[in-house]
Amino acid sequence: MPNFLPKQVQNLIEELAKLPGIGPKTAERLTLHLLKTPENEVRHLSDAVRKLKEASHFCLICWSLSDTPDCCAICRDDSRDQKTICVVEQILDVGSIEKTGYKGVYHVLHGAISPIDGIGPDELKIKELIERVSANPGNVSEIILATNPSHEGDATAIYISKLLKPFDVNVTRIAAGIPVGGNLNYTDEITLGKAIEGRKNF
Amino acid sequence: MPNFLPKQVQNLIEELAKLPGIGPKTAERLTLHLLKTPENEVRHLSDAVRKLKEASHFCLICWSLSDTPDCCAICRDDSRDQKTICVVEQILDVGSIEKTGYKGVYHVLHGAISPIDGIGPDELKIKELIERVSANPGNVSEIILATNPSHEGDATAIYISKLLKPFDVNVTRIAAGIPVGGNLNYTDEITLGKAIEGRKNF
Repeated sequence: MPNFLPKQVQNLIEELAKLPGIGPKTAERLTLHLLKTPENEVRHLSDAVRKLKEASHFCLICWSLSDTPDCCAICRDDSRDQKTICVVEQILDVGSIEKTGYKGVYHVLHGAISPIDGIGPDELKIKELIERVSANPGNVSEIILATNPSHEGDATAIYISKLLKPFDVNVTRIAAGIPVGGNLNYTDEITLGKAIEGRKNF
Repeated sequence: MPNFLPKQVQNLIEELAKLPGIGPKTAERLTLHLLKTPENEVRHLSDAVRKLKEASHFCLICWSLSDTPDCCAICRDDSRDQKTICVVEQILDVGSIEKTGYKGVYHVLHGAISPIDGIGPDELKIKELIERVSANPGNVSEIILATNPSHEGDATAIYISKLLKPFDVNVTRIAAGIPVGGNLNYTDEITLGKAIEGRKNF
């Protein structure tokens, strides 16, 4: 920490360096940038950080974020297919799937099963998903397991699918394969194997 | 901007994405991190941003940063050699030179001459440096030009050295050469040329 800098400047550098992916040099650079930024723009950033938690809640149905303390806009929206639940690992995955034009609802697990990181099923919103399905018999027709096609995401999908066996609900898994615009020659053998395994009638 | 997120969350993502080197994906990631961070730590960051400008001033002698509105701790420090002025491009360069154990004072130009970026001598604190030297005849013994050894830094050093000609002051330039621990075989020919040009009796 360069101690020739004023205390408030050092303080902000320290606070920014606590953020993930922001090292001390980046923190210095950002702080010096903010020093040259007009006062009102700096105030906007400060206010945005301060107000972040005030009006952000977890949706008690899908565990995504919500403006209101009870449930989110997607879970309240009657024009969406409330019988199809897309299960994702992270909140930002909801945004990725929204871009595809998907019109069902979501369930955010807040992670994937990863024993190496000490994350078991109890750390995730899996119990909440099962309760959501069992509490609404006949009101859930399909569960799309959209966890990442990684070891952890696959294990989580398999675990959830087993728990969902007793219920009368169609459980599906998103396809793994070659990305659109991709090239067979540059695709790793595991992805290519998944693409062949998941082939369809043409 | 994913519009499924609460307004305050979107707001912070937008504000963070305005910072240099922070793209929309990084802004999303940082915001989601802050959502999981305890309230008081988020408050520390918000306060640090808000207070940044309150107690940060430019030193009216060296144009580095100062806790007080008049002049900085280094310029006030009588134990330092106030007759030797090290001229640097940026505020953070002061920190780099402080680490070497340098005991003189500084002058921060706030950039280097770069016509392609529209930065001429008038945009920099060059006039202030000349005034500082001319206002203190006999009180400045050496000016160390420590601008970067780049085209812009070199041009700025040459420009300043010409302006300092009329004054009875020793003008020096930091050495360009092979970094300590470096390897001749991996050094570009311009740096190696500078190292040979700057050779000393051994």
